[in-house]
Amino acid sequence: MFITGIGKTKFGVSESPLHEMAYEAAAQALHDADMTPKDLQAVYVSNFVGGPDARQLHLNAVLVSLLQCEGIPAFRTEAACAAGGSAVFQAIRSPYDNILVVGAEKMTTTSAKQNSMHIGFAGDRLLDQKEGLIFPASYALIAQQHMMTYGTTLDDLAAVSLKNHVNSQRNPLAHFAHKKVTLEDIRKSPIVCSPLRLFDCSPISDGAAAVVLTKKKKGNSISIAASAMATDSISLVQRKNLTSFQATKRASENAYKEAGVQAKDLDVMEVHDCFTIAELVAMEDLGVCAPGESGKWVREGKTALNGELPINPDGGLKADGHPIGATGIAQLVELAAQLRGEAGKRQVKNAETGLAQNVGGVGGTAAVHILKKG
Amino acid sequence: MFITGIGKTKFGVSESPLHEMAYEAAAQALHDADMTPKDLQAVYVSNFVGGPDARQLHLNAVLVSLLQCEGIPAFRTEAACAAGGSAVFQAIRSPYDNILVVGAEKMTTTSAKQNSMHIGFAGDRLLDQKEGLIFPASYALIAQQHMMTYGTTLDDLAAVSLKNHVNSQRNPLAHFAHKKVTLEDIRKSPIVCSPLRLFDCSPISDGAAAVVLTKKKKGNSISIAASAMATDSISLVQRKNLTSFQATKRASENAYKEAGVQAKDLDVMEVHDCFTIAELVAMEDLGVCAPGESGKWVREGKTALNGELPINPDGGLKADGHPIGATGIAQLVELAAQLRGEAGKRQVKNAETGLAQNVGGVGGTAAVHILKKG
Repeated sequence: MFITGIGKTKFGVSESPLHEMAYEAAAQALHDADMTPKDLQAVYVSNFVGGPDARQLHLNAVLVSLLQCEGIPAFRTEAACAAGGSAVFQAIRSPYDNILVVGAEKMTTTSAKQNSMHIGFAGDRLLDQKEGLIFPASYALIAQQHMMTYGTTLDDLAAVSLKNHVNSQRNPLAHFAHKKVTLEDIRKSPIVCSPLRLFDCSPISDGAAAVVLTKKKKGNSISIAASAMATDSISLVQRKNLTSFQATKRASENAYKEAGVQAKDLDVMEVHDCFTIAELVAMEDLGVCAPGESGKWVREGKTALNGELPINPDGGLKADGHPIGATGIAQLVELAAQLRGEAGKRQVKNAETGLAQNVGGVGGTAAVHILKKG
Repeated sequence: MFITGIGKTKFGVSESPLHEMAYEAAAQALHDADMTPKDLQAVYVSNFVGGPDARQLHLNAVLVSLLQCEGIPAFRTEAACAAGGSAVFQAIRSPYDNILVVGAEKMTTTSAKQNSMHIGFAGDRLLDQKEGLIFPASYALIAQQHMMTYGTTLDDLAAVSLKNHVNSQRNPLAHFAHKKVTLEDIRKSPIVCSPLRLFDCSPISDGAAAVVLTKKKKGNSISIAASAMATDSISLVQRKNLTSFQATKRASENAYKEAGVQAKDLDVMEVHDCFTIAELVAMEDLGVCAPGESGKWVREGKTALNGELPINPDGGLKADGHPIGATGIAQLVELAAQLRGEAGKRQVKNAETGLAQNVGGVGGTAAVHILKKG
């Protein structure tokens, strides 16, 4: 399967409603693929809180109506924050030749309290949340464990945040495209849940992203070399180890096998940095470095744009933004742009192989895709 | 693909939370298939309002945790009230050999006002709902058009309701298993939206249903002879004709072709009677009878349990209940039980071929499956 068209709206605070953002990204991806809606055989829509936020859950039918390709099957799929990766994973395994996969989320119109509740729908309500483990608390616990086990420091976390903010300034569609952030800003930002500060957390964003998948290769096509997905217990209580996500490990092992590559063969990576600690854990789970070494890697600039293995060149969830249903698709849009050599000021040199890791909940679901040039 | 295991909870007002109902149906289906969770390669979860109602959207990961089969891919899929049919449609097209498909919904714990809002998430918010076309109003409009065009009467609608309530009294798991309903009750029930009365509307139900799908046939397996899905514009405003659902027509044409059967070859049918008028429209769209003749068919008892083509032997959405995400799966559970000859007091004689039609929104999505004995 190939990614033949890509589209993405500006992430951030949008004045457009959910369906308009979805349409905008979809139209862009179709235009980019030199296709029309009539060429499609199926549509997959990735969206998480469409109901409570935009009051629309039947977004698949809405999108088919807007694109005027009524008739073809259209699905809405969701796996919490891994909804995008899950939609692409399913689309790849479907029998269709030409598929549109759109992810969209509208989050800035609801109150912080409502958003916090909606995001909580992705976590474990039975064991974790009753003990106060809402998302920032869960990731703070993971950060604490990582610090205790490996000596990871606040500076390691800050280095992830700074790198992603620096990258986002080269990405005109990023949520924080125009926000200059210094190490001092990060260090002085308010504590959300110790040790995580405000700048360790991804923002609440609106946005949409889309890819057109085709069985046949076309001019600009990027090859999907591997697609894997795995789950873990939804509750942290049931896990033996908090410094690693088994779902990421399992999915990436399968993906590396399928693509016939190893972490050292990758030129660029998009990982699910909903919190800075998540980027460090992802690096270790994906085999980029040994457990406990991720902080050092980031501090040494190895994952910067001009580093050994650039991670999150678009700014990641931290600075590109995290419109939940769109996130996993946006990662693939960024990788495809990088492998095409069309990533502008944030172009990674000679990028030929890239990996995207998309996580749902606190590691309850993970989707891993590997893309190759041509 | 085969349906090798089936499970269903009692539909109605349940004291169990969403995840427990889902687990109960899943465990039953696995037991029925003589399989354990370890035999599964993927799980599909069909759920509509899990977020706002049960505050859990990552139900796929929850279920994998409860079944202790962490690791395998698990998806949540949704197409409004066609979520169940959509999940089965996608599972059939997946590369896995052994799949669990579970549909579940918890609806009775939220207020009528909240439920009304949540159900509205399945309809068109941009054009229809702004004009007052919430679900009962949309189907009332369809009923009015059907009456004007074909002379369909209130008695035709009442006959559908009565038949389904009579059937549900033979179904111990039905929402209205123990409710005796007379034609007088139906005729005197309050008007919800003219011409639809209370007894023309399906109830708000809790419940779960599950099927185990296998690529290999086993002892009790029922063959899935066809699986089709289609969409239409989500808004009624954009349709030329309100007395017919194009999505049902298109999906069923494809399904009949795939299975090599016609409507006249069917022995039993499950249709999406969210309102009584929807059963009449479905009969015509599925080719059971000519447009305008459905009312007569029902009044003459042709679709009764002992009729020419029994429709909704379990009581349908009207009387078995309509726990949204579970509905499309429950239809297949009923058909499988009928084709196995295990439907007890509501057994349709010599049932060898059955069809299920599951609708999302006001016909924005339709899924049609045809099952064959053996």
